[in-house]
Amino acid sequence: MKKVVPIKVFRHRLLILDQRKLPQEMVWFEAQRAADVVYAIRHMLLRGAPLIGIAAAYGFYLEIYHEIKKGRIPTLAFAKRLKQSLDKSRPTAINLMWATELMLEAFRKLREKNKPGEIVNQLFAQAKFIQEDDAQRCAQMACEALVYLEKNLPRQKYRVLTHCNTGALATGGIGTALGLIRLLQQKGKLAMVYVGETRPYLQGARLTTWELFREKIPVTLVVDSMAAFLMQKAEVDVVVVGADRITRRGDVANKIGTYSLSVLAKHHQIPFLVLAPESTYDGRLTFGHEIPIEERDAHEVLSFHGLKVSPPVKVKNYSFDITPRENITAIITEKGLFQGEPAFSSARATSPSISIS
Amino acid sequence: MKKVVPIKVFRHRLLILDQRKLPQEMVWFEAQRAADVVYAIRHMLLRGAPLIGIAAAYGFYLEIYHEIKKGRIPTLAFAKRLKQSLDKSRPTAINLMWATELMLEAFRKLREKNKPGEIVNQLFAQAKFIQEDDAQRCAQMACEALVYLEKNLPRQKYRVLTHCNTGALATGGIGTALGLIRLLQQKGKLAMVYVGETRPYLQGARLTTWELFREKIPVTLVVDSMAAFLMQKAEVDVVVVGADRITRRGDVANKIGTYSLSVLAKHHQIPFLVLAPESTYDGRLTFGHEIPIEERDAHEVLSFHGLKVSPPVKVKNYSFDITPRENITAIITEKGLFQGEPAFSSARATSPSISIS
Repeated sequence: MKKVVPIKVFRHRLLILDQRKLPQEMVWFEAQRAADVVYAIRHMLLRGAPLIGIAAAYGFYLEIYHEIKKGRIPTLAFAKRLKQSLDKSRPTAINLMWATELMLEAFRKLREKNKPGEIVNQLFAQAKFIQEDDAQRCAQMACEALVYLEKNLPRQKYRVLTHCNTGALATGGIGTALGLIRLLQQKGKLAMVYVGETRPYLQGARLTTWELFREKIPVTLVVDSMAAFLMQKAEVDVVVVGADRITRRGDVANKIGTYSLSVLAKHHQIPFLVLAPESTYDGRLTFGHEIPIEERDAHEVLSFHGLKVSPPVKVKNYSFDITPRENITAIITEKGLFQGEPAFSSARATSPSISIS
Repeated sequence: MKKVVPIKVFRHRLLILDQRKLPQEMVWFEAQRAADVVYAIRHMLLRGAPLIGIAAAYGFYLEIYHEIKKGRIPTLAFAKRLKQSLDKSRPTAINLMWATELMLEAFRKLREKNKPGEIVNQLFAQAKFIQEDDAQRCAQMACEALVYLEKNLPRQKYRVLTHCNTGALATGGIGTALGLIRLLQQKGKLAMVYVGETRPYLQGARLTTWELFREKIPVTLVVDSMAAFLMQKAEVDVVVVGADRITRRGDVANKIGTYSLSVLAKHHQIPFLVLAPESTYDGRLTFGHEIPIEERDAHEVLSFHGLKVSPPVKVKNYSFDITPRENITAIITEKGLFQGEPAFSSARATSPSISIS
């Protein structure tokens, strides 16, 4: 079965698969303007750092397209505000700001020529490039990660633990961590994928299981807190996750629960890999604690599909956490091993089962 | 507000608060025979190791009561089968077998006298004693734990992380870990209780929050996978949990996710305390891996209140996990520090912030 497509692109609108309703229903949300895309990102109709960037790029395009259709070329100030409004939709994933920056830059250059048709065409092409480029990055990343794994942790077959959703529903291609998992399956080298359900939003239980189930990839769903017990029972060969932002030092923001897995993996001497495209890198930040961590509404934890679970108590609902470089065996991008700034290279975790070359 | 009562006891029946429906509804299930109690335990209408023991004791009594009412004193073989059927209802918590053993022993002695009325009266008294005795053990345990905490980890106020439900809904009294939390609150020494929602059954989100909310004890609910991030942020002073079984060596079976917390606490040098009555001790077993771990049905993870969450993939649903003695700073019973067999005393974890006397 072909992998699922999370967005459908047209010149005057963007159709977004409402991931909140998966896997029960395939409902498409129509975005005509940037504000619709902001809504879709903020309310989690779509998620996943690379995909958010792609959607934001199309949102930027759509807004300019509609302005130009009205007969006016927007000012640069308008475009900057547009970027800001898109950037604010989710604060942690840097791919979002990276993609809107590319769009703003393209617009800045195009605007000088003062040709409305060309602005529209070129901005559309730029957004489409960001999407297709991400697909290639995914493929390349999976390849690099497989080479790394076979060299540093040779196994007949791998039992992989992953978290959240990092697949076709989170990127422009086969995914980051899930891209590697797909490649392992293709090569006959995958024994089992353990996926944590990823509370509170259940991206693991709803989305990752669904992607893998459709493609007949062996998957076992577990509650997040069971990962440690699986490791104790020696059921996990390697942990592979994605990233929402990576600092110069190599600290990683990713879905809440990632840091927990990194500590558990370290304790059990299991390699912990982060897969992310270079667009996830934030060269302005050094340490993980500098990354803004989104806190979402209490109701995501207190209720379930509108059903009240708990009394109205206080909730802490960080959407992401920070994994320090020390807990990560390797960060792998489409270019291979991410080394981080040389000044911080000693921070790298080494695992007895992986000798880093 | 008075603490909640999980069972109501009568001479010819037992009313069991259906905890599956909490906190939305207070529905009472009527048990007239042992099979009803087995049903209630197996289907999680009531849970919590000490409470399961108490309910099983009453189940034993009810079955004998009804047999005697029919005009016959049951044979010892009947009573043994009765104990076995109760014991099988949940395999991990040892308090269950401990309580039915007390009942069987009482029956064995009473049967010799051949006085039906006395058998009924004395068995009822024995079950009631097990219940009331557990209440006293809870109170004593909280006291011992407070003394331990104040001596070894002096703080003005404590921020406590706990897991699952170990309160009035799990015991015959104020609870084990939650008993200590109640006592800290009483003494004005409680800053905050963080409780993990405890997937898949949400005992933390549904039951612990409810108990604490009713008594205006400060509580913050978090997804289980956030515990590590709270520890990284230095928001947790001590982790306190209950137990379903403790071996001679001091390995502990408890709700799935407990082992995870123990590793995380160790990594962050946070004291990790287990509170349990001596009835939780299983002197026949040495190592944690000897404890039978119940695996429950996949649907507990795949669906929520009848709502399908995930595609029908494979699930691992261990109800409990094993925390080795090395990860536990102290096990505290109603008698004080549990030392375990002398041969294993070196297995004890020490924490830089707790100097064990």
